[in-house]
Amino acid sequence: MNAPNRLPMAAQCANALRILSADAVEKARSGHPGAPLGMAEMAEVVWRRHLRHNPANPKWLNRDRFVLSNGHASMLLYALLHLSGYDLPVTELQRFRQLHARTPGHPEVGVTPGVETTTGPLGQGLANAVGMALAEHLLAATFNREGHKIIDHTTYVFLGDGCLMEGVSHEAASLAGTLGLRKLICLYDDNGISIDGQTRGWFADDTAQRFTAYGWDVRIVDGHDMLALNEAVCKAKGSDKPSLICCRTVIGCGAPGKAGGHDVHGAPLGDEEIAAMRSALGWTAAPFDVPDDIAREWDGRGQGALLESAWSERFSRYCKTYPDLAAELLRRCEGTLPLDLEDGVMQLLSDPSSALRKKIATRKASQLVLEPLLEGLPELFGGSADLSGSNLTNVEASVWVNHHGKGNYLSYGVREFGMAAVMNGIALHGGLIPYGGTFLTFSDYSRNAIRMAALMQQRVVHVLTHDSIGLGEDGPTHQPVEHASSLRLIPNNRVWRPCDGVETAIAWLAAVQRDNGPSCLLLSRQALTPFERSAEQIEAVKRGGYVLRDAARVDVVLIATGSEVEIAAQAAQVLAGSGIGARVVSMPCVEVFFAQETGYRDTVLPVDIPRVSVEAGVTWFWRGVVGCRGASLGIDTYGESAPAAELYEHFGLTAARVAEVARSLVERP
Amino acid sequence: MNAPNRLPMAAQCANALRILSADAVEKARSGHPGAPLGMAEMAEVVWRRHLRHNPANPKWLNRDRFVLSNGHASMLLYALLHLSGYDLPVTELQRFRQLHARTPGHPEVGVTPGVETTTGPLGQGLANAVGMALAEHLLAATFNREGHKIIDHTTYVFLGDGCLMEGVSHEAASLAGTLGLRKLICLYDDNGISIDGQTRGWFADDTAQRFTAYGWDVRIVDGHDMLALNEAVCKAKGSDKPSLICCRTVIGCGAPGKAGGHDVHGAPLGDEEIAAMRSALGWTAAPFDVPDDIAREWDGRGQGALLESAWSERFSRYCKTYPDLAAELLRRCEGTLPLDLEDGVMQLLSDPSSALRKKIATRKASQLVLEPLLEGLPELFGGSADLSGSNLTNVEASVWVNHHGKGNYLSYGVREFGMAAVMNGIALHGGLIPYGGTFLTFSDYSRNAIRMAALMQQRVVHVLTHDSIGLGEDGPTHQPVEHASSLRLIPNNRVWRPCDGVETAIAWLAAVQRDNGPSCLLLSRQALTPFERSAEQIEAVKRGGYVLRDAARVDVVLIATGSEVEIAAQAAQVLAGSGIGARVVSMPCVEVFFAQETGYRDTVLPVDIPRVSVEAGVTWFWRGVVGCRGASLGIDTYGESAPAAELYEHFGLTAARVAEVARSLVERP
Repeated sequence: MNAPNRLPMAAQCANALRILSADAVEKARSGHPGAPLGMAEMAEVVWRRHLRHNPANPKWLNRDRFVLSNGHASMLLYALLHLSGYDLPVTELQRFRQLHARTPGHPEVGVTPGVETTTGPLGQGLANAVGMALAEHLLAATFNREGHKIIDHTTYVFLGDGCLMEGVSHEAASLAGTLGLRKLICLYDDNGISIDGQTRGWFADDTAQRFTAYGWDVRIVDGHDMLALNEAVCKAKGSDKPSLICCRTVIGCGAPGKAGGHDVHGAPLGDEEIAAMRSALGWTAAPFDVPDDIAREWDGRGQGALLESAWSERFSRYCKTYPDLAAELLRRCEGTLPLDLEDGVMQLLSDPSSALRKKIATRKASQLVLEPLLEGLPELFGGSADLSGSNLTNVEASVWVNHHGKGNYLSYGVREFGMAAVMNGIALHGGLIPYGGTFLTFSDYSRNAIRMAALMQQRVVHVLTHDSIGLGEDGPTHQPVEHASSLRLIPNNRVWRPCDGVETAIAWLAAVQRDNGPSCLLLSRQALTPFERSAEQIEAVKRGGYVLRDAARVDVVLIATGSEVEIAAQAAQVLAGSGIGARVVSMPCVEVFFAQETGYRDTVLPVDIPRVSVEAGVTWFWRGVVGCRGASLGIDTYGESAPAAELYEHFGLTAARVAEVARSLVERP
Repeated sequence: MNAPNRLPMAAQCANALRILSADAVEKARSGHPGAPLGMAEMAEVVWRRHLRHNPANPKWLNRDRFVLSNGHASMLLYALLHLSGYDLPVTELQRFRQLHARTPGHPEVGVTPGVETTTGPLGQGLANAVGMALAEHLLAATFNREGHKIIDHTTYVFLGDGCLMEGVSHEAASLAGTLGLRKLICLYDDNGISIDGQTRGWFADDTAQRFTAYGWDVRIVDGHDMLALNEAVCKAKGSDKPSLICCRTVIGCGAPGKAGGHDVHGAPLGDEEIAAMRSALGWTAAPFDVPDDIAREWDGRGQGALLESAWSERFSRYCKTYPDLAAELLRRCEGTLPLDLEDGVMQLLSDPSSALRKKIATRKASQLVLEPLLEGLPELFGGSADLSGSNLTNVEASVWVNHHGKGNYLSYGVREFGMAAVMNGIALHGGLIPYGGTFLTFSDYSRNAIRMAALMQQRVVHVLTHDSIGLGEDGPTHQPVEHASSLRLIPNNRVWRPCDGVETAIAWLAAVQRDNGPSCLLLSRQALTPFERSAEQIEAVKRGGYVLRDAARVDVVLIATGSEVEIAAQAAQVLAGSGIGARVVSMPCVEVFFAQETGYRDTVLPVDIPRVSVEAGVTWFWRGVVGCRGASLGIDTYGESAPAAELYEHFGLTAARVAEVARSLVERP
């Protein structure tokens, strides 16, 4: 009865996933077997019967996307990739969770071929997938033509209880429902178990009803019944809404002694239980060995080649009929910028009559830059978490997807985290460069998604306005104090805090040119005095920090960012009045500056001259920049609700105070 | 027809809120009139007909709680407090949004009498309210006795579209529904407008259905129909579930030219529109002047005194019958700790055979400390975001609220942000000290709620385990790198990263003793070598940093935290072998250390001796600590998936490397 040849091949295919997953977790002595075992049938149905992909070319432009939002089930995905024929040999499965293996503890994009996004922090995979489905929809609307469906693919997601408890699932699902992203198909591993035990004690939602309320199509099936699963996926593909398929599963299904309990979630099964599972499933092959007939069934390379070549033929016809469109699509998907983009921006800056050279808020400068940028870079896809009029992220050319079903701008709603994670999905999909706005203080909400963009090296631009006490009356909840510094601490993130229109333009340029990580543009609500600069100085902005105003003899260096640069410049004048030579260094991007070679850095910040930093935020970060002989002016408490000018006085961020502190350093015995 | 005497008094009372709000925003030339105008009837009904409070004593223990989750409508709350008779004179309304006024841009607890929580970051007010309702439920279960309903109050919330779009609303509402918090009554200002315009383009949820899916009672009413509103609140009070009342309102209702549009949301109405509103409402009184009859109607002091004195009588009887319980309740609500608590913990540490002195993970040490701590401090209320077995936040004495309906421990589900915001609400309510666990890396999810606890000066303890690459195989998504430093940047937050059982115990003690802000305990997954300490050294741990191992002649100071202290200690031995005297400073809480007087700090870190910091995280923060002559060892990139020991080697966090760097500093010419 348990002999493998009695089981239908589909069941054996599912069991291959179970055995490979359990064996790999066991060998690593670390990992999560419960979810892979519970989702084996879901995986078999989606991957063998529906997913249109080509294992030989994980970068095929029109592939379906698959996201494992419950990323701890990574071994399931690795087993799928291995069996389907991706470049992931069994030796990699045997090195699961080992240093530099292509099979890390959680799936990581860029590490493993076929992994579309890095998942692990729960809920974000779903939001990434919403971004992918949105990107597909937008690119299809832009590039498809009658008789030429070049962009036409589905995004599949597996997710678990944890994803659905996370708030970001609400933000992403509500948005997907509102936008009607019909090519998004989510399968929910509804096993009723999370780490603390049976979920009903802390998660009693009627999830089907909840997603119906979002405007999704919802189906409930037995997650181990492959016919039912297949039927549900077929129906979902025909729906005009996003779909949730609630798959009632047993966690660790197949492990006779541990299935259904929470102990199977995050620890190896143990030799005894694995042996019992092998016996129960009638699986006689050795660890990591898959019987030939099952391996052949899983091998997706032949089918994949057919799928891609059929598409390639269609694309060849498209290239002939619409050569410009095709070239543009390929350019965008390769992430190459138009050659003349930088020239355009730099020309804009060299015009002394440019509005960018007036006294304006840097958020306004950002909007002024966006206008021509969007013209030269149509892949820019903008938006705001319901603060468009404040972030000034929208421009004349913005077309709201919300109202038109297509376009280049999205009101994301009050969903900062969801927006950031959706933007990551858009960037991962390719073909678009997402930017989105909110207040800097609410980067706290989206913080982990910014981190994920940095970890995944994705080109995403965060427009974070109202960047200090300078926003005034909204008070301490809205006034960022620690945020600039704490965003700088995220590895591979770039924080730009420009001081005027010119720096804002260059920050934008750097952000869109950067193809291996996110950028955060920290922009002022209040108008800032513009600075005159030489052509060399304008170029030097790109180095993250440069000499903006110099003295004949430099006694002290004043380093400032953003709105505090003009305070530093005033202080330098005050100091000049008392015979002290103060250099003003504008440092819009500390990370870029400190990535310059030592020679340049020492030219800007001479080693033996005392330094004073001025930034309307916490000073901890700056102490390392100014060193032992230096001083840092900032705000190490919370802000207050009052008009901005009063706040600067109240917190002592004035030219007089900067000059006083600088003088004390210079005159120190 | 528009004459005020034609309008029923209730309508005039609502209009008083409108006029005061609009006038104050106008005078400040800044603020949000739209929501106060739209919610005037909701406010009239809840505040004049249901809210059981005493304006003369905002701290009355058994008062109903009112939370304005859409905090930008602050002027509505200030108008309510002023009119009800709280200590908030009209002069304060006239100083709306001015420096040091008691009427800041968003409501701030501690600044304005009667404000129960600081709101502004959307969605968190709702979660705070869930915490308040939970605290009421738990305290009632603990302290009420047959015939003695001492704790018996309702938590009312006003919230808006923004709150409901935020993910944290999902986490909080799902939890409240699961727990059946029947004394939570939320009124949703369903006006269909957010900053970007009409919400239907980005927020098409069927909110009533969504909340039904959470197990809430939902009612839909015309939000300007006071009879309907009143009936809905009456029914909600009788429900055995949490209630959502969807109030269909018109934003800016009463402003004839601007009502219903999004321009009324966040900018003053302007003189003309205010004049038109006065005329439309038949309001002839001057700005900030409220006619006597309306003022009398609003005055809640008489009723409040009656309510509190009736309760006080009941409480007197309770005190006589249950003197110990009554004393305990009062102690808890005052936030006073038992006198012998510190002695108990310190005694535990002085026992050389204590399990705390073994080689254990600091998360395990935390659990060992919690055991006796919970005995001495029954107000400790624990929990975890579905990681109890990993965070080790539960102890023998933990009783799960999820299973028993009462107790001292909650599985919050996979809801880090919700947990943190609910904990803030519990702390704000009083009577309980909340602590909750998750992985350190997911403090990103809860970050703004940690910030809010710090801003609100609330005693909340975050147990953040798996605090570095030392967690091993789960990889970079789960390995915090920047988190310790970035949590330290939040003003008034305290981050403890203890190196062994003794430091963990003292960190816990400091966290529960701290009555003006949150503490984060960063704990290891892996076992750490314990250190022997003198009694003086044990005392010195409380100072945040101290000399753990010294040399006869100090050539270099090695500063480390948590799991890296043992590496530093090994390095000191290596250095001793080559004749270099290295002092080892353990610095479990940098903030507390740098708050010590200079004398102490200079004793620990002598000014002229080079320093090396060692922490398995980003080094930016430490550069300021080690100064120009120092060096910082850490990890400025992301982690990797591999066993912990290999990762420490891979990232160069070894005794040999620390010794090498230290030697280079000492031998530098």
